[in-house]
Amino acid sequence: MNVTKFAIPEIIFGANSLQYLGSCAKSNGAKRVLLVSDPGLEEAGWVDEVAAVLQKDGIFWAYFREVQSNPRDFQIQEGARFYLEQEADVIVALGGGSPMDTAKGIALIASNGGEAKDYEGANRITRPLPPMIFIPTTAGSGAEISQFAIITDVERQVKMALISRTLMPNIAIIDPLFLQTKPNWLIIASAIDALTHAIEAYLSRISSPFTEMHSLRAVELIMAHLEPALATRSKEHLASLSTASTIAGMAFSNAGLGVDHAIAHSLGGMLDVMHGLVHPIMLPAVMRFNIEASPGKMARLGEIICGSSFGSKEETALAGIDRLESFFQSFAIPNRLRDIMADGSKLEQICRMAVQDACILTNPREASWEDCLGICEEVW
Amino acid sequence: MNVTKFAIPEIIFGANSLQYLGSCAKSNGAKRVLLVSDPGLEEAGWVDEVAAVLQKDGIFWAYFREVQSNPRDFQIQEGARFYLEQEADVIVALGGGSPMDTAKGIALIASNGGEAKDYEGANRITRPLPPMIFIPTTAGSGAEISQFAIITDVERQVKMALISRTLMPNIAIIDPLFLQTKPNWLIIASAIDALTHAIEAYLSRISSPFTEMHSLRAVELIMAHLEPALATRSKEHLASLSTASTIAGMAFSNAGLGVDHAIAHSLGGMLDVMHGLVHPIMLPAVMRFNIEASPGKMARLGEIICGSSFGSKEETALAGIDRLESFFQSFAIPNRLRDIMADGSKLEQICRMAVQDACILTNPREASWEDCLGICEEVW
Repeated sequence: MNVTKFAIPEIIFGANSLQYLGSCAKSNGAKRVLLVSDPGLEEAGWVDEVAAVLQKDGIFWAYFREVQSNPRDFQIQEGARFYLEQEADVIVALGGGSPMDTAKGIALIASNGGEAKDYEGANRITRPLPPMIFIPTTAGSGAEISQFAIITDVERQVKMALISRTLMPNIAIIDPLFLQTKPNWLIIASAIDALTHAIEAYLSRISSPFTEMHSLRAVELIMAHLEPALATRSKEHLASLSTASTIAGMAFSNAGLGVDHAIAHSLGGMLDVMHGLVHPIMLPAVMRFNIEASPGKMARLGEIICGSSFGSKEETALAGIDRLESFFQSFAIPNRLRDIMADGSKLEQICRMAVQDACILTNPREASWEDCLGICEEVW
Repeated sequence: MNVTKFAIPEIIFGANSLQYLGSCAKSNGAKRVLLVSDPGLEEAGWVDEVAAVLQKDGIFWAYFREVQSNPRDFQIQEGARFYLEQEADVIVALGGGSPMDTAKGIALIASNGGEAKDYEGANRITRPLPPMIFIPTTAGSGAEISQFAIITDVERQVKMALISRTLMPNIAIIDPLFLQTKPNWLIIASAIDALTHAIEAYLSRISSPFTEMHSLRAVELIMAHLEPALATRSKEHLASLSTASTIAGMAFSNAGLGVDHAIAHSLGGMLDVMHGLVHPIMLPAVMRFNIEASPGKMARLGEIICGSSFGSKEETALAGIDRLESFFQSFAIPNRLRDIMADGSKLEQICRMAVQDACILTNPREASWEDCLGICEEVW
């Protein structure tokens, strides 16, 4: 029995939970907040809404909006300069994974100095970060829960995984009603990201009874609620997707991920593709690659995905993967690698990068760059 | 959809996790630790062990041992004086629920002043407490996880429930191997305490998807592992009991409890009976009383307890309660109220006290003191 750690932020969950932002910020000592969000959320009126809540509670805020999908290292540097200039003391992020990871990067550089690449990998941050309060508007990235920050090194064209207990926000304020305003494709891509977090964390070498229960419940919830959430947009189904994303975050933050995420980071760094679109293509193939390393767990996943078990562990595992594949195909999203990248010639380079990613370390089966290339070719 | 909150300490779990105490204390700014434990743990050599870990890391420690089962308000006052005299900065508790609740009381009074009774009920603590790092040696109380402290008001002969986010420890260091040295009766009473936490939290009026999943998993684990843990003392089964107690703590800390705990606190305050011995007597009767308020949840519990469902919800619920009753009877523990108290004449007074307890508020069915008396008479 190894020693395992399990840490999550304080969670405030429910419709209009945004109203708690002011008291949360104050209890973390906020006088001047740096608010990180993006132009899309401004347009939707949410940035004003957050600003109004802060203002009502007498908290000054400065606004940083240089956020884009797959956040870049130089944007982080800019944000950190702005944070220090503004003499901010607490960081609030509003949005999907990108504003939240940008905010983590800003908190890191403002307090520890240097550049994002100095902290690539696990446990390389030494000094404490300013308090972070995150408000996710999608249900997928888990960045509001996790000890991970994913930041693109523009020069090397690589999405770096930074992993540290200090990158975990202090408070996550989760309002599932944000999802009502989101397009289907974003809900789908986010839910599949969360599903992939749950499955990779479940299979991780360092999973624990604490993370495993969260993984399995997240898989159950997403399989049951994604389709009806899209069809009905009911509060109940959307809230279940938010719950699933949150508990999948609890799982992967503490258990780590695997080959799918290692390749997705490498692909995303080089091609700037949307993270959530990589998993439906890669995950089934990565699971097939992993079966031999954890047939028991893979069969348990199969049982949950199919709602029943079959003859042998392997049959149940394979049935689960097949079902997952047809589940992904039921949505109008790309299902081959060639659908999201024009040219296969970079695959070798992508796979050589992938095995440098910290996520590869917790994959249940050791994977060389050639193994990764085999997986990519299978789904080309 | 109401707003729900979910907060738990950072958890370090596993054999020899005690070794992390020094670095945990330091990361919380410790220079002078107040260590709270009791004579039983001194004899077992565990206090020396903890002291050695602190010493190795160059942390000064002062030791407070005035702890007894059902900790008293005057002991808390004494401990708070000692904490201030010693200029301590972090509180470490080692033991079962009693040393941990004593430590919470000390942290409260040392930082907020006054007496324990000033803070009885929910959310009455205003100032922050010193950092707390708790090391449970039993698997049941959940005090290392929870926002509850239970302290006896000696004058009024009542066990007060104090509930506040600030009473949650910062870090829980959980080593299931402590259980190997414990007698059977203590493992049984602790596991049944955890089971009761899980069930009452599941049925609570303010349960959430986050607390419910933890409740159900804790019930599953205790039903599956208590008997084999006693029979084999294997690390695996003991670790499952520790996991169950931890996740039951996550559930009740955030969802609250119910009538069983309200009566148990009232009984414990007046008669100084061991907390864990009250539940096997009260819980089935309290569950029967609650069926009408939540037939669906009660049936889900029945399914998990029995491993199958029966004709109707009510039949499944009742089968679960019957199975639980025979499970309790399989252990050599009291199963009638008259076995643990000599004289029934105080029952009315006990029930009039019970409805003042904060735990009654989250019970799924409203309960008057007459209802509580009816339950007590049923199990007399």
